Amino acid sequence: MKTETTIQGLSASLSPARSARKIIGFIPTMGNLHEGHLNLVRAARKLCDVVVVSIFVNPIQFGPNEDFDNYPRTLEHDSHLLAEVGCDIVFAPSVEQMYGKQPRLTNISVSDITNDLCGLQRPGHFDGVAVVVTKLFNIVQPNFAFFGQKDYQQLAVIKQLVQDLSMPIEVIAVPIARAEDGLALSSRNGYLSEQDRATAPTIYATLQAAEKQLHDGLELDVVLTNIRQILTEAGFEVDYVEARTPTLQKIGQFDQDIVLFVAAKLGKTRLIDNLQVKHST
Amino acid sequence: MKTETTIQGLSASLSPARSARKIIGFIPTMGNLHEGHLNLVRAARKLCDVVVVSIFVNPIQFGPNEDFDNYPRTLEHDSHLLAEVGCDIVFAPSVEQMYGKQPRLTNISVSDITNDLCGLQRPGHFDGVAVVVTKLFNIVQPNFAFFGQKDYQQLAVIKQLVQDLSMPIEVIAVPIARAEDGLALSSRNGYLSEQDRATAPTIYATLQAAEKQLHDGLELDVVLTNIRQILTEAGFEVDYVEARTPTLQKIGQFDQDIVLFVAAKLGKTRLIDNLQVKHST
Repeated sequence: MKTETTIQGLSASLSPARSARKIIGFIPTMGNLHEGHLNLVRAARKLCDVVVVSIFVNPIQFGPNEDFDNYPRTLEHDSHLLAEVGCDIVFAPSVEQMYGKQPRLTNISVSDITNDLCGLQRPGHFDGVAVVVTKLFNIVQPNFAFFGQKDYQQLAVIKQLVQDLSMPIEVIAVPIARAEDGLALSSRNGYLSEQDRATAPTIYATLQAAEKQLHDGLELDVVLTNIRQILTEAGFEVDYVEARTPTLQKIGQFDQDIVLFVAAKLGKTRLIDNLQVKHST
Repeated sequence: MKTETTIQGLSASLSPARSARKIIGFIPTMGNLHEGHLNLVRAARKLCDVVVVSIFVNPIQFGPNEDFDNYPRTLEHDSHLLAEVGCDIVFAPSVEQMYGKQPRLTNISVSDITNDLCGLQRPGHFDGVAVVVTKLFNIVQPNFAFFGQKDYQQLAVIKQLVQDLSMPIEVIAVPIARAEDGLALSSRNGYLSEQDRATAPTIYATLQAAEKQLHDGLELDVVLTNIRQILTEAGFEVDYVEARTPTLQKIGQFDQDIVLFVAAKLGKTRLIDNLQVKHST
């Protein structure tokens, strides 16, 4: 496995593969990797000749009060994990390498589907994601890009971006990786106290219970209220509990396939999760 | 010369060239071609193995009161001209082929340098240009893209876009092509009455006189006022007369290389021109 820290170095490393028209798979990450990321690499490994993983903590997707400075940087450990699952090239650029010294004047925004859910609490977040992913796509020029369904809204934004800008890339969605107790894997789980870590799986358990309630015929409104109540009683500070269509359109009742979304804080740590619920059982 | 009207068809046409890693040159146009466009093709022909010209009247860069519906569509004549100067592939997609049936949610904006000059009179214009050029770049995936210096602000916006989004493309600026009497070639010159066509070269003559005045030591403010006065007296309705640095920063005096910009209407036809003025003579 190679590690490249410059755009030029990465281009040189990928040049033979491009000449041979090999299939390039790409997974953009912010590092601090866990099984969820490794599943993305495994999915890429199956489909592609060359697998590139970027590790870049992207400053412009963090709000002023968010955890950019404290976001864990664990390149050495990440590299070991990536080598084990068959990554070919790690791209780990500096902020200056990615954004240069000149001020950036270009912004990309994806409207409607970025205005609520996580976008409401994190203004500008998805613009920052859209810009960095576009840049990374232009640098890596992959055939396939892999994203986890845990960040479902991010995945929907990227799919929309790729379609709207005619990017020659296929986006592959990979199911959420979970701990044995059901907690969706996240870099931020490491911030949880022991007690909060024990509480955290309540989110997924509640989503599963909600799925059953929906299939049992309970009204969507009631189900969403139940989720909120259970999580609040368990000690969460709930950001949102929402139901959407798979393309993130708002929905009033359970009359088609939907996705249930939760964002909630335990202490200072914000956790998100989601569950796709089929209408036809 | 091939003509392709679909993204899929274009990709198939370009596939052998891509496999052979040939150098692809690209010129995006809205058709109704004149010598200015043909100069871009000639420049591409010198530098590239394969030359692609797109002809697409892009609806999203026209304002509601602009001339989208009446913009001349002359594909057959354009194709003859392009074949003569060595274009390899004409890409002439429909609006639906470019934008699909689903609503577009993604917007790209380049701040600061799009807010004034032509951007002031045409709100949203450069966003529309940025989106369509990004889409066309993603579809054609050229090594080089050629733009005329007549649309200097557009050229500056594209250069900024390419840099900010790390697009793997080199932008080549090609000097303004002019009629023998100095009028900058433009698709819109065809809208001019005979009398207005006779008046139109005053713009370039005035810019050249201004260059001389600057080199003679006249104050920049005075020179700009003179340009405005001469054009108004000649029957133009002046939109703007401005001086900027080559990267479009505002400037108060002639103490470095600058670009003089004029936009002015004759009847209903809006003409633009610019002249780069070197400081060191």
